[in-house]
Amino acid sequence: MAPEATDPGAVDPAAMPARGRVRARALGLAPGIFLPGAHNAITDVAGVRVGHATVIEGEGTRTGVTAILPHAGNPYADRVPAGLSVINGYGKLAGATQVAELGELETPIVLTNTLAVGRAVEALVDWTLARNAEAVSVNALVGETNDGRLNDIRARGVTAAHVHAALDGATDGAVAEGSVGAGTGTMAFGWKGGIGTSSRVLPPALGGWTIGAILQANYGGVLAMDGVPVGRELGRWYLREHTDRGDADGSVMVVIATDAPLSDRNLGRVATRAMAGLARTGAAFSDGSGDYAIAFSTHPGVRRTAERRAHQAIIADWPNDRISPIFVAAAEAVEEAVLNALTMATTITGRDGRSGRRATGHAIDLDALRGVLAQHGRRA
Amino acid sequence: MAPEATDPGAVDPAAMPARGRVRARALGLAPGIFLPGAHNAITDVAGVRVGHATVIEGEGTRTGVTAILPHAGNPYADRVPAGLSVINGYGKLAGATQVAELGELETPIVLTNTLAVGRAVEALVDWTLARNAEAVSVNALVGETNDGRLNDIRARGVTAAHVHAALDGATDGAVAEGSVGAGTGTMAFGWKGGIGTSSRVLPPALGGWTIGAILQANYGGVLAMDGVPVGRELGRWYLREHTDRGDADGSVMVVIATDAPLSDRNLGRVATRAMAGLARTGAAFSDGSGDYAIAFSTHPGVRRTAERRAHQAIIADWPNDRISPIFVAAAEAVEEAVLNALTMATTITGRDGRSGRRATGHAIDLDALRGVLAQHGRRA
Amino acid sequence: MAPEATDPGAVDPAAMPARGRVRARALGLAPGIFLPGAHNAITDVAGVRVGHATVIEGEGTRTGVTAILPHAGNPYADRVPAGLSVINGYGKLAGATQVAELGELETPIVLTNTLAVGRAVEALVDWTLARNAEAVSVNALVGETNDGRLNDIRARGVTAAHVHAALDGATDGAVAEGSVGAGTGTMAFGWKGGIGTSSRVLPPALGGWTIGAILQANYGGVLAMDGVPVGRELGRWYLREHTDRGDADGSVMVVIATDAPLSDRNLGRVATRAMAGLARTGAAFSDGSGDYAIAFSTHPGVRRTAERRAHQAIIADWPNDRISPIFVAAAEAVEEAVLNALTMATTITGRDGRSGRRATGHAIDLDALRGVLAQHGRRA
Amino acid sequence: MAPEATDPGAVDPAAMPARGRVRARALGLAPGIFLPGAHNAITDVAGVRVGHATVIEGEGTRTGVTAILPHAGNPYADRVPAGLSVINGYGKLAGATQVAELGELETPIVLTNTLAVGRAVEALVDWTLARNAEAVSVNALVGETNDGRLNDIRARGVTAAHVHAALDGATDGAVAEGSVGAGTGTMAFGWKGGIGTSSRVLPPALGGWTIGAILQANYGGVLAMDGVPVGRELGRWYLREHTDRGDADGSVMVVIATDAPLSDRNLGRVATRAMAGLARTGAAFSDGSGDYAIAFSTHPGVRRTAERRAHQAIIADWPNDRISPIFVAAAEAVEEAVLNALTMATTITGRDGRSGRRATGHAIDLDALRGVLAQHGRRA
Repeated sequence: MAPEATDPGAVDPAAMPARGRVRARALGLAPGIFLPGAHNAITDVAGVRVGHATVIEGEGTRTGVTAILPHAGNPYADRVPAGLSVINGYGKLAGATQVAELGELETPIVLTNTLAVGRAVEALVDWTLARNAEAVSVNALVGETNDGRLNDIRARGVTAAHVHAALDGATDGAVAEGSVGAGTGTMAFGWKGGIGTSSRVLPPALGGWTIGAILQANYGGVLAMDGVPVGRELGRWYLREHTDRGDADGSVMVVIATDAPLSDRNLGRVATRAMAGLARTGAAFSDGSGDYAIAFSTHPGVRRTAERRAHQAIIADWPNDRISPIFVAAAEAVEEAVLNALTMATTITGRDGRSGRRATGHAIDLDALRGVLAQHGRRA
Repeated sequence: MAPEATDPGAVDPAAMPARGRVRARALGLAPGIFLPGAHNAITDVAGVRVGHATVIEGEGTRTGVTAILPHAGNPYADRVPAGLSVINGYGKLAGATQVAELGELETPIVLTNTLAVGRAVEALVDWTLARNAEAVSVNALVGETNDGRLNDIRARGVTAAHVHAALDGATDGAVAEGSVGAGTGTMAFGWKGGIGTSSRVLPPALGGWTIGAILQANYGGVLAMDGVPVGRELGRWYLREHTDRGDADGSVMVVIATDAPLSDRNLGRVATRAMAGLARTGAAFSDGSGDYAIAFSTHPGVRRTAERRAHQAIIADWPNDRISPIFVAAAEAVEEAVLNALTMATTITGRDGRSGRRATGHAIDLDALRGVLAQHGRRA
Repeated sequence: MAPEATDPGAVDPAAMPARGRVRARALGLAPGIFLPGAHNAITDVAGVRVGHATVIEGEGTRTGVTAILPHAGNPYADRVPAGLSVINGYGKLAGATQVAELGELETPIVLTNTLAVGRAVEALVDWTLARNAEAVSVNALVGETNDGRLNDIRARGVTAAHVHAALDGATDGAVAEGSVGAGTGTMAFGWKGGIGTSSRVLPPALGGWTIGAILQANYGGVLAMDGVPVGRELGRWYLREHTDRGDADGSVMVVIATDAPLSDRNLGRVATRAMAGLARTGAAFSDGSGDYAIAFSTHPGVRRTAERRAHQAIIADWPNDRISPIFVAAAEAVEEAVLNALTMATTITGRDGRSGRRATGHAIDLDALRGVLAQHGRRA
Repeated sequence: MAPEATDPGAVDPAAMPARGRVRARALGLAPGIFLPGAHNAITDVAGVRVGHATVIEGEGTRTGVTAILPHAGNPYADRVPAGLSVINGYGKLAGATQVAELGELETPIVLTNTLAVGRAVEALVDWTLARNAEAVSVNALVGETNDGRLNDIRARGVTAAHVHAALDGATDGAVAEGSVGAGTGTMAFGWKGGIGTSSRVLPPALGGWTIGAILQANYGGVLAMDGVPVGRELGRWYLREHTDRGDADGSVMVVIATDAPLSDRNLGRVATRAMAGLARTGAAFSDGSGDYAIAFSTHPGVRRTAERRAHQAIIADWPNDRISPIFVAAAEAVEEAVLNALTMATTITGRDGRSGRRATGHAIDLDALRGVLAQHGRRA
């Protein structure tokens, strides 16, 4: 597992798509009306960095950690405004109420598995205390997803070292997707899910802002890819047998970044639009899926520096009346991030966390997918 | 206004589709995995009744009222549990905070235009006081949408009589759709919008419950119909010209009924899933669109009778763990209700409420639509 | 105290304290640690104006309207940021969801009785349309309280003319309190309640800001006045007989203004502190009392002008880290406003809205009150 | 640490008041109108158990853990409905969003210090997994308070063993208060704070239910004890010097139990009333105080058993219309719990977590307090 954790950045093999796997755009899937940024990743928002620690151990542990850093500085000292949207709160998201109250993030965002939240909070607090000698209060923001279909989740494979590796290995540029980091053991729509990212750049007349999203897809429903009913065509969908074994459950935590100078309230509204992107992929928003989104702004004019937190300040503000294109872009980036998670994911065999039985999450077959897309008039 | 208000039910001409207009299913559009009920309407939930008052006067007034009654009895005496979801709160929804606090409806739900909310509240309070001699507090639930693109909204065409006509004319059975009632002057995705309804019946193994939705579509985005990119194909979508004149604004109020014995909390969760249905139609969820959903249960085991409101009671409860299929059904019914609103809507010419200029909302051309659907492999 | 009272509304005697009635400070009641402003009223926040319409007709109608204007300009064109707190949402507050979504007020705030909300919304919309030729959407903010113990509330005494009179008659300077405006028919703790107002000015080291509150006290509990158990001492309190006839119900709508440059989020937090002031008076926060607070900022640096609503803007911001003294001041002003409502209220005889029987709300006896206060070591 | 954790019950020394310390009632402080239960503790609600682990190590570590178990069974298998109220969300409460979404608790409630939340979540997950072989998802409910004024909080004194000791040592009967468990290092109003508990029993005519509260008081303001201005009289209050060094910050997590069969929604409303109790003690509700309350019901008719979670169920319900006395009782119990925390707390010397300097939290002088109370007409 070492390589993934030691250098999860863009230039190393971990960031290269696995053999035969491609991003959704290479299949002709380009949802929405806006264009992506250079990397089609959350890192297109300048300053944002992403790191993964992929944890594959023995026959059962298939899990990991993904960290998103809002900027290259100290996130505890120079805070970014943030807003949260709880679509379905069946989840263990740590740090939620303080983000809602203060409208800001004071740590990086860490994603991991459901039963690792405590350990990840502890590790993120340690990481923050080590960098801030006077800190006595830390609101660690840790999202989770239940990867227990492929991961022996009760074995608790994630350690503080993994969290620190993800944080310290975070880079800008291209982002590894699929069965890596917090997406190592996740499933989506019955196929192997994983980490996906995407971005949009607004035309200058609409502000020119960049909006990026990253998520760990781990939920179910009836898969649609840019509107094409892939799940139906490939014969795999939630409730097909009219029995509900919770197979749409799991959770998805969406992280959205933008360089637009948004207030915390408007960031919360942007986060709410994540659900539109998820809905368009066919998400069931089932009882047992914790579906959350958090959005933050990297704009220096809204950064909560020590100075701005201590005195009356002057801050930048992009108004309500001009925010709609950002909403549209956020939904598009989220939708495409899910598609990327599926098309970049690789097959993983691990152990079901409940039964202890061997279990395999199969990556979606891209040839079959190409066939369905062609049938529906989509072409790469 | 007279004909529409005097008999807005199923058997009269007002409920008949206008010449050449058909429901979405007749075009091969059948989103989702569950089947609709007998009328494919919210009235498939036994006891629910719908009434319209269509207000067309002079050259400018193109508006109306739609009323939804939860059961045939006195809604103030026998209350239904209800839950609300505010997706984008740019709207004038009356009655919101009390529904959230008490988890119940005490009036029918009335939908009308933005500037008519005060008058509709007054009329709904009057209607309730007349039927309840001891009532001194009434929480009128009135949703709205801004039909000011086709309706001279500042002229305030809606009166108390219209509200009463919609309430008193409500019937079960088929529901008039398109440019009627609160949908008379609405626009959706650049075409004429209006009232739409749909329903789903769960298979017995999943509970066998019925879920129905009704809404007045009046918002924008990039139209998708059961996944087919109709807006792109027909060359009409929000932000196409990279300018935002608020053309996705407007609002949509979704009403969902079910006969499942849900708690108010779980009804709120069902209401939240309305956004999935809207998202799949390509909704932009723009700043200026007030996007709300309310869900209620007609199950007698959760009805809040005078007896149950005064003493410790025994109530029915469908658990969290089995609710996911209801979530899926609700999203499907909402999606199809929007499609019905578009395919059933008829062209309306009125006056822009801001400029006073003549304005026409064109119904979507069904032949062109059939062509697009065929291109994408859909067949009636 | 006379000067403040001489011109708080119109030039009329209604603004004069009734014979023998005094404000709480004249009785030695001065809750908290900060000092009030010049008028000890919400109008100490520069620009804020208050107007009342007192509606006393025949033997049964004892109600009214109180309007609060955030500044001397056009509130629809130049909007103030605002935040809302719903303590107990059993109420008919109109405009709630849009304030939460957009973080701003676009009309004055109007307070009236429960069954008059529809009419007041209509009147406030009219008033706004008349002043804004292009407005096609108006979010009227109308709070209410149920004055049906003394007011024949089903008779619907409030008209649009009353609403307009309150709006157009609004002035700065001293504010009439007690049985006036929306407080004409209200009860508090079993005595006559009414309108009360108060303010606090922070010392320069804490920002120097002014915080003012106004409310219509109409709820119950166990009355405490600056900590003194007046209700117990005078033998009158909620649940004394171990029966609950809803006698603590009614509602209170609190309006808080400040000249501090607060974000909408922080204004929502200020509004939340209103409950602390209410709690200290002994409020029961009963099921049937709709307890709400709204706070807005008059600071020009946060005013949402047409310019700021259309383009990227620069706004002022008072940070989280320095807001706590404003929280304390808000709670103090609210507590004292309730005390003023009680000590300034005059006895009113009207008709019970439910039974139609004659009913009298007795003003608290100030001599008895002075006795209790003296017993507890308080001195005027 | 051992003695406190091994036997925190009533008959051992840990539960005995420290020499000279007494509960508030022994000083004549009996806020409210209802009577307490047998122990005047949350454990008066049958089945509820409380355990403490007091962590005093070296010169700096002064902290601990308090656990509240809702019943004697398996809280993961037999869940209690619960509702949450976030008064000021500056805190790290774990488990919040799932309680709000599902309306239930699936673990005991653990209270500890701010920087120990991660470790406590981990320990509570471990504890739950050990008792539930098939569990793969656990929503650990962990509240916190910042005891860094007396505790070298960065040293991270709390371990999993302490959490397990508090859980496993929990008992019914009398509850140790003051400087124990999660209250070991807390401060309130400038004096030593700590754990406090209280209860109320409603008269039969009002339902006869028992309501109990427990909290770790660690916040500031202007201390009032049953209305008596103790802080002012003893010359100690927040902002006295017109400087704000965050001395009212800290947090308080309130836990309320009742045997009334309340829905999760109504439990959330009960939790909201905690703020009334806090407000009456003079709480500043400052920016940096995370003020939360959670309420749960032990009534068997609302217990979420495996059976009730899998099938349509019949549950008990106490209606909105009869809940107000429970609101009043909850506020009273919370107020008295704070008083008990202060009068039972003992002086603690530790180290300031930020500066590392020696720091002492002095217990409030009971003789001085008796003097103030007598001056204000209160007598033991």
